[in-house]
Amino acid sequence: MNKLERIDFPLKQQPNGDYLWLNLFRINSGNSGPHVHIQANVHGAELQGNLVIHELMDFFINNPFKGSITFIPFANPSAVNQKSGMYTQGRYNPVSGKNWNRNYFELLKNKDSEFNLKDFVTQNISHNEAQISENFKSVLFNICDNLEKKTAERGLQNEDGHFNLLLQKVASTADIVLDLHTGPVATRYIYTTDHQLKSALNFQFPHYLIIPPEFDGAMDEASFMPWVSLSEEFKNQGRELKNNFESYTIELGSEERISFKEANLDSKRILNYLLSKNVHDLKIEELPKTSIKTCLLKDYKSYYAPRGGLYEFCFAPGEAFKKGDVLAKSLNFKPVKGNESFSKAVEEVYAVEDGIVINHSTSASLAGGHPLYQVMENIQ
Amino acid sequence: MNKLERIDFPLKQQPNGDYLWLNLFRINSGNSGPHVHIQANVHGAELQGNLVIHELMDFFINNPFKGSITFIPFANPSAVNQKSGMYTQGRYNPVSGKNWNRNYFELLKNKDSEFNLKDFVTQNISHNEAQISENFKSVLFNICDNLEKKTAERGLQNEDGHFNLLLQKVASTADIVLDLHTGPVATRYIYTTDHQLKSALNFQFPHYLIIPPEFDGAMDEASFMPWVSLSEEFKNQGRELKNNFESYTIELGSEERISFKEANLDSKRILNYLLSKNVHDLKIEELPKTSIKTCLLKDYKSYYAPRGGLYEFCFAPGEAFKKGDVLAKSLNFKPVKGNESFSKAVEEVYAVEDGIVINHSTSASLAGGHPLYQVMENIQ
Amino acid sequence: MNKLERIDFPLKQQPNGDYLWLNLFRINSGNSGPHVHIQANVHGAELQGNLVIHELMDFFINNPFKGSITFIPFANPSAVNQKSGMYTQGRYNPVSGKNWNRNYFELLKNKDSEFNLKDFVTQNISHNEAQISENFKSVLFNICDNLEKKTAERGLQNEDGHFNLLLQKVASTADIVLDLHTGPVATRYIYTTDHQLKSALNFQFPHYLIIPPEFDGAMDEASFMPWVSLSEEFKNQGRELKNNFESYTIELGSEERISFKEANLDSKRILNYLLSKNVHDLKIEELPKTSIKTCLLKDYKSYYAPRGGLYEFCFAPGEAFKKGDVLAKSLNFKPVKGNESFSKAVEEVYAVEDGIVINHSTSASLAGGHPLYQVMENIQ
Amino acid sequence: MNKLERIDFPLKQQPNGDYLWLNLFRINSGNSGPHVHIQANVHGAELQGNLVIHELMDFFINNPFKGSITFIPFANPSAVNQKSGMYTQGRYNPVSGKNWNRNYFELLKNKDSEFNLKDFVTQNISHNEAQISENFKSVLFNICDNLEKKTAERGLQNEDGHFNLLLQKVASTADIVLDLHTGPVATRYIYTTDHQLKSALNFQFPHYLIIPPEFDGAMDEASFMPWVSLSEEFKNQGRELKNNFESYTIELGSEERISFKEANLDSKRILNYLLSKNVHDLKIEELPKTSIKTCLLKDYKSYYAPRGGLYEFCFAPGEAFKKGDVLAKSLNFKPVKGNESFSKAVEEVYAVEDGIVINHSTSASLAGGHPLYQVMENIQ
Repeated sequence: MNKLERIDFPLKQQPNGDYLWLNLFRINSGNSGPHVHIQANVHGAELQGNLVIHELMDFFINNPFKGSITFIPFANPSAVNQKSGMYTQGRYNPVSGKNWNRNYFELLKNKDSEFNLKDFVTQNISHNEAQISENFKSVLFNICDNLEKKTAERGLQNEDGHFNLLLQKVASTADIVLDLHTGPVATRYIYTTDHQLKSALNFQFPHYLIIPPEFDGAMDEASFMPWVSLSEEFKNQGRELKNNFESYTIELGSEERISFKEANLDSKRILNYLLSKNVHDLKIEELPKTSIKTCLLKDYKSYYAPRGGLYEFCFAPGEAFKKGDVLAKSLNFKPVKGNESFSKAVEEVYAVEDGIVINHSTSASLAGGHPLYQVMENIQ
Repeated sequence: MNKLERIDFPLKQQPNGDYLWLNLFRINSGNSGPHVHIQANVHGAELQGNLVIHELMDFFINNPFKGSITFIPFANPSAVNQKSGMYTQGRYNPVSGKNWNRNYFELLKNKDSEFNLKDFVTQNISHNEAQISENFKSVLFNICDNLEKKTAERGLQNEDGHFNLLLQKVASTADIVLDLHTGPVATRYIYTTDHQLKSALNFQFPHYLIIPPEFDGAMDEASFMPWVSLSEEFKNQGRELKNNFESYTIELGSEERISFKEANLDSKRILNYLLSKNVHDLKIEELPKTSIKTCLLKDYKSYYAPRGGLYEFCFAPGEAFKKGDVLAKSLNFKPVKGNESFSKAVEEVYAVEDGIVINHSTSASLAGGHPLYQVMENIQ
Repeated sequence: MNKLERIDFPLKQQPNGDYLWLNLFRINSGNSGPHVHIQANVHGAELQGNLVIHELMDFFINNPFKGSITFIPFANPSAVNQKSGMYTQGRYNPVSGKNWNRNYFELLKNKDSEFNLKDFVTQNISHNEAQISENFKSVLFNICDNLEKKTAERGLQNEDGHFNLLLQKVASTADIVLDLHTGPVATRYIYTTDHQLKSALNFQFPHYLIIPPEFDGAMDEASFMPWVSLSEEFKNQGRELKNNFESYTIELGSEERISFKEANLDSKRILNYLLSKNVHDLKIEELPKTSIKTCLLKDYKSYYAPRGGLYEFCFAPGEAFKKGDVLAKSLNFKPVKGNESFSKAVEEVYAVEDGIVINHSTSASLAGGHPLYQVMENIQ
Repeated sequence: MNKLERIDFPLKQQPNGDYLWLNLFRINSGNSGPHVHIQANVHGAELQGNLVIHELMDFFINNPFKGSITFIPFANPSAVNQKSGMYTQGRYNPVSGKNWNRNYFELLKNKDSEFNLKDFVTQNISHNEAQISENFKSVLFNICDNLEKKTAERGLQNEDGHFNLLLQKVASTADIVLDLHTGPVATRYIYTTDHQLKSALNFQFPHYLIIPPEFDGAMDEASFMPWVSLSEEFKNQGRELKNNFESYTIELGSEERISFKEANLDSKRILNYLLSKNVHDLKIEELPKTSIKTCLLKDYKSYYAPRGGLYEFCFAPGEAFKKGDVLAKSLNFKPVKGNESFSKAVEEVYAVEDGIVINHSTSASLAGGHPLYQVMENIQ
């Protein structure tokens, strides 16, 4: 049995004085190997990842493995606890409106980082891979540390950045970062860059969205971008350095719900990936055969409600549709003035291309311009 | 084909100056008969009733019937349009916090009503039933009208009361009032008093909650209480007057979703009831056989979350459970300090009596004391 | 120096597992005397009372007095911490919509109280006042205790009631209960029944609202009603028992702001009252001369916005106005279609009676029917 | 008298079917001259600009001038009407969380714009200034038009962009764009680039923040950036083209309030600027002498709350402070365990540099990391 450790960070002192805490769990195998960072629930309503962490903890407590794992369930208490009606309003900071998964720091390019990548590569040009990796993790950790200090000058840092920087700092020494999310009403899908795709297929997820290696503030990007830049700079200086670092945003179905049974399968998919990364060597049984679909981010399209009204979603997440299919039916009584116009109460929304539904809105009641569906097109 | 008429009321001028409108639809059969008032969506997220109204409109446009019907879909635009995240925060007024279905007026007892029931009965003691009903409806309409005027003295009336009074005034001349709601994640059920139960069974709904004939601010109570008081006063003065008025709160499954197919069945159930009330005489085909369960309001019990955490609901709305069954499983990492306490992450909630799940919370993420389930016990 | 003690209650476990705490502070004089209960911030945005508690703590730590005092600052952490934008949305429970100051229990009349007042009085009819008071406090405490246990059957109690019952239980042994609130944008005023008014004038507040001795769910009512009932029942059984218990809702200006300087004056007013109740005997210096105005609750009138738009408030809280005065000016461009109707953009709201402004809305942007002013009329 | 025209655009169909409207007012002088675009209330709680528009309308109806003016009061009805409690939650879209003033399009660089600036300049290199300006406005209008069409493919465009693009399209033919905002609790200040500063001083505002000519999604930037790029490209191709276009974000004090009197002064300041731009030639009387302070955006600093608690703001907007001054005092009882720690309840926040307060938070109740003040440092 491997030892489970808990480390507590005071994250935020609320106005009444009570703290919200980050409880970080760590399991060390005692064997050398990669460090894995797994966090869940950065968006308040995206719950399923916490159950998956529970399953994975159980596995790694009870089975031999290599390296070490950090788990952060309930990673964003502010978002988890914010209710409006019975629902969790946890996609953005209720004070600032900022999306909790868009405020991570671009560590190498931040003006306060005071880090010169070129110099770092020059200094490390002839080190071995393991040594370079070790040195670069130190650099990332120190940048986080410095950024924290810089921002303390006029009181604390802004809540948005403070929270994200703490997670980044904890994750800065990892080789693999998994950020567990869910969609609104959604199927299971993974965001990956092209350079990680081959490895990502070991998750055996049904859908993959291929994103460009660019920074837009999310955890996966904030994690892999420094390593992408590192490889590029090595190349510039004449050495091909393999980039072994990987990070993913993993979408585990729908928000506001949990399923212990599905969590068991989710954890097996993640364990199958971790097997491919040599974190452990236990063959994962009973993974269902999955037909995998991928598409480029530019082909991940949104349908918006063409008018205000109530919408029935005619296709469920994961279902394929053909151009011309009725995707949704809406009800709105405003055009009904009498018997002749009664038929205008119901309208249909048609597919403009073939596709697969990835998610749809959590509410059937939409204003014109509210999101209806997100779909994959040009599927490979 | 019967004529569909639309009448528009400006309900509320928003701060920017745009109005929210109440669009009332009326179909008159041309034959004498009862007046039916059907409204939907007083709570903003409770959508299904609007589709049911659409089905019923279709029926009453195209079939002969007796009397007349008023439909008010989207009866509460303020509530329908209020979003917080993608969800509809529409159970209570976001300014005052008041439940939109608890601000109706107790018409006969309101201090500004200036109505003496005793005198009314004395004056009508020897009239026939139809005449009494006609006179009493006039009284109710006039009380609404007076209350409206009273409250205009210092600007408009408070938004809460203004909205409810307008609906009450429109409904004041009805013989049957149906207020279409939904639960959170819920089965189909109806609130009825004991004196209406026999008639209510014609809805062929699976579950009935028997409420006492008391006023607590809801539309059904506000509608039937004057007629209950009228009968009582007639009895006091020595005449048994049959109370033919009926009003119901009808719960059509879960909030934030719609289904056109289910709406068709819902409308058939309502048409079956209206058949029994002689509103029309077309036999309703294809009603599924329904095993009907009833319980008293005092046996309609709530389970609350015993601790903060994530909850899986082990029983779906409509399902029966036995004392001792595991109703829910919760996940919470706070008690986990290390390997020994790892098992404390998951806890179970047990049933304390046999029952049937009527609804459960829309979110799996709950604080201690948040609602978990509402269940029927002592079922008949 | 008197000893300041702190007692901590876990109030609510949030979904992420972190607790919100009630921190209760107690100072015991060591001398026999009344027990005073002072709480603040039950509504989340009503902050000033916490500063007043800080001033009073300072006084009672450093000065001799009689009896003991319980202070509960930040009494409602759920409400204090709930933000929507930068503002505190803390007047009602964001899940249920229930006003946090309307869920207290009517202890003697609650069906689960299992208490017979008649029997209690019969048993205590010949005891002395002190003994009766002591016995009655025990009764109140036990009722709270029993209610707590009753509600734990199906998980915890509903969050709304749980919170209020805990405060009631702590206050059940007090002789004086002060519940510190604020208005929206408001002057300073006190709610009192007629039977407490003479004593209440020792607060030297500028405005008093005289409420009937009835129960509507607020802390002051929940606290004084049992003692009112007790006196009445003694009277029924033939003995005049002086009711020495007093409780007040005290409104300390405007919400969302604090002032240390004003808190010092607020505390002096409260100390002047406590001097009159023999809690201490230090003369309070520097109380400003205050012209006191009172009115009955029925003359505490609301003005509502007669149309949607922006409102300038022409009178500040505490200011007197005459019938016909322009109370507010509104701006709304919807009636402006061109040059001729340009003048309709601005409208005035006139006073229909003489009065004094007690408070006005916190926002200048109002829908028709939103609250504009609350004013005293028929002032004495 | 000049003619006031109103043009109405349906902006958004709400879920219940009612529309929110954009009401645009236009006054044409009949004389050739610049086109001025003035909008207000893009953030829902920022009200004062609507009154200033009312004053300016009055002026331009009744006085001769050159060119034409478009006014859009209540420019963002979704934001204006969204309440949470009595307050207006209108800084960001309550569904998406996106700041309403950060979704404008970078017209020349948007991938769907299909516009080649280089070619445009080549074609216009020898035209006169007026002709170039005319041609460029056409280009901007057409880009907006094309972007609108592109986004209609899968239903409407996302609500966020749709709203902003409509305002941009209306403003695309203007020579001067004024976007009227307010701060939270704030003084009056203007955002300007360095190249507009000299002209901006004619507003006679007390404070100016000098921003770099970069695009970050706000209306002022979205408006001036195309013209900045145009000048640069002309320079690249060898011609110095004077950039006469100007746009500003103007902050008119505090949110959630209005003052007709202050609006009169605000309008005079704007009229003084418009005089300098030859829109009219009436000398503006009674402008108060204003001592003007400017600083660079990099010296516009934020103080954040160093702990959770209640804060008194010791300096008002517009006031200067010195390094070491007590900027704020906070109250928090969590560190108080007994008499020895009682003094820890109150803490002070000190200035780390000299500065001027521009704005502070609207609430005194803050979590650690919530915004406290925004201040100017290194003032010129």
